[in-house]
Amino acid sequence: MSLSFELLGTDGPARRGRITTAHGTVETPAFMPVGTAGTVKAMLPQSVAETGAEIVLGNTFHLMLRPGAERVAALGGLHKFMNWPGPILTDSGGFQVMSLKDLRKLDADGVTFRSPVDGSQHRLTPERSIEIQRLLDADITMSFDECTTWPVEEPAAASSMRLSMKWAERGKRAFVERPGYGLFGIVQGSVFPALRAESVATLTDIGFDGYAVGGLAVGEGQETMFATLDTTLPMLPADRPRYLMGVGRPADIVGAVLRGIDMFDCVMPTRAGRTAQAFTRRGELNLRNARHRDDPRPIDEHCACPACAHHSRAYLHHLIRAEEILASMLLTWHNLHYYQDIMRGLRGAIESGSLGHWVAAFTREQDLGDIPTL
Amino acid sequence: MSLSFELLGTDGPARRGRITTAHGTVETPAFMPVGTAGTVKAMLPQSVAETGAEIVLGNTFHLMLRPGAERVAALGGLHKFMNWPGPILTDSGGFQVMSLKDLRKLDADGVTFRSPVDGSQHRLTPERSIEIQRLLDADITMSFDECTTWPVEEPAAASSMRLSMKWAERGKRAFVERPGYGLFGIVQGSVFPALRAESVATLTDIGFDGYAVGGLAVGEGQETMFATLDTTLPMLPADRPRYLMGVGRPADIVGAVLRGIDMFDCVMPTRAGRTAQAFTRRGELNLRNARHRDDPRPIDEHCACPACAHHSRAYLHHLIRAEEILASMLLTWHNLHYYQDIMRGLRGAIESGSLGHWVAAFTREQDLGDIPTL
Repeated sequence: MSLSFELLGTDGPARRGRITTAHGTVETPAFMPVGTAGTVKAMLPQSVAETGAEIVLGNTFHLMLRPGAERVAALGGLHKFMNWPGPILTDSGGFQVMSLKDLRKLDADGVTFRSPVDGSQHRLTPERSIEIQRLLDADITMSFDECTTWPVEEPAAASSMRLSMKWAERGKRAFVERPGYGLFGIVQGSVFPALRAESVATLTDIGFDGYAVGGLAVGEGQETMFATLDTTLPMLPADRPRYLMGVGRPADIVGAVLRGIDMFDCVMPTRAGRTAQAFTRRGELNLRNARHRDDPRPIDEHCACPACAHHSRAYLHHLIRAEEILASMLLTWHNLHYYQDIMRGLRGAIESGSLGHWVAAFTREQDLGDIPTL
Repeated sequence: MSLSFELLGTDGPARRGRITTAHGTVETPAFMPVGTAGTVKAMLPQSVAETGAEIVLGNTFHLMLRPGAERVAALGGLHKFMNWPGPILTDSGGFQVMSLKDLRKLDADGVTFRSPVDGSQHRLTPERSIEIQRLLDADITMSFDECTTWPVEEPAAASSMRLSMKWAERGKRAFVERPGYGLFGIVQGSVFPALRAESVATLTDIGFDGYAVGGLAVGEGQETMFATLDTTLPMLPADRPRYLMGVGRPADIVGAVLRGIDMFDCVMPTRAGRTAQAFTRRGELNLRNARHRDDPRPIDEHCACPACAHHSRAYLHHLIRAEEILASMLLTWHNLHYYQDIMRGLRGAIESGSLGHWVAAFTREQDLGDIPTL
């Protein structure tokens, strides 16, 4: 029943696992490209799969507003709609609804808000969020929660977390169990260990197929984020996958895997790909910079993506300056490929018990900076 | 020496041929996708090749301004720069320079103009146009000419044509012969048969590797365009390829092949792909239209492109409404694939002597209109 998680091996707190869903398996640690509106921006779904991604994330908020969850269901579900036959995780819509600020009204039962697309009024409750995710046919459904703001005082963080816990319980009751489909709870409590502990205890009492750590990467900084993971993760059951939401830069992902996180999502590689930024083994490159104008080298001669296999930095720079769509296509592909290279590296290192060496080499290489230009 | 053209067969005035260039062969009749700024917009070059295109067009005007012809040459030429190992034809820059209106000054020797990119001053002469095309490493170089405006009186058309003929002769002197590389002359003279005849006589006296028909598809209408081809094409040597510049819609291409044209280029399939328009066997579709919102069918169930193989009209409509880059990618791919399907169909029909039947079926199907929606 539901989805299954096998813990295949560990190296310290770091875990090598496998999630089996209705639409296939996911080797962990895994990075999920974000496919907000039913497309990983600027990528054919076949190309996303070619980078090594096995699961993508869909956004409940965007899809409920356009084209609408009932429409996606009538068209055969999100897998068919976007031609992604593999596993899909959907978020709950909570994060985006809360970000609407002036356009939303929160009450104990849910959130009423105006669509930024057409101004129409909508309502999200824990039950409706779960229903939408079922209509989308998500393999992994996320509990509807309030993402606690940052910075925040402990009392406000506590009441926000306790509201999310009530909503998690309602979501669990609303979730219809199906083989290969699962529901994840989201640990809140900001940076306060006692609140995180209370949240973990509540969620594990309810019982979920996996546990996400929410409310991080909101401005607290990497050190505080890692400290929160250090106190939170040991409290989570070892036999369920752990998902750090919205994280992050390569070094954030590596540090979180070291601490026992299994799953990640982030818009960074795709968004950066549309704004001339390339992530590489040796740090970040801004290809818009004039120093790349005559550079015949690829972004990274060791990268197997089409941008690196076939194109020079000079060409990518030209495409960016000429505002060509191909610039977004090639840089997005490169960034997603590099992120999957990191995940492949981490999985291999955990398997072979060499994670410490792998991380030392990763850190050293990132710190070296780009190969000097011509 | 230079490039070669084999006439493999005919069906009435229609011709089935093969052009052999330094970078490979082109089966004709051929449609050349336009790769203005060193990229066929929204397509990976591999994907352009997958549609069946064997040659692409590059724009001298755009490339000389950005990134610059000398830069492209230093980076190994346009084939390497844009990762298109096959044949490339470049235009002369004339058409775009003449369109600048207020920003250009024409004299008997050439054109001085301001760059729309950065306002810098540039000059194009017949000799400089040929030099730029050599720096780009074009397999087929086009003569620098003045594209005669429309509408135009005969005296103005005559002096414009005679200026282009002088420039054609200067270009021929400037062109450096290399094996597999060729120079095409451009027949001008607007819709006036006597001027077209004079232009053909002048160009064939000079001697070119191929002949383009210029100054059409500028507003004169399909009937007038075909009438001009009917009088012009029989005067051209049968053993050289004939290229109708900037044409066109599917029915324009079919009609021009019937009259003996071998090569085409047009921005229509790519530009339409970025504005929600799909060309199909049964006419044009605007996928932005709300009637496609719930339509589970592909654009065309008989089309083998990725848009048709994997995606519904409803999904494409959604991507267009959400302003997703993938909409441009998929629709451009479909349109280019459909254009190449037409060229494959025309080539096969000429080979088998069944062009009349093929054209009748093409016309009937186009006139049927779209398959009724659900």
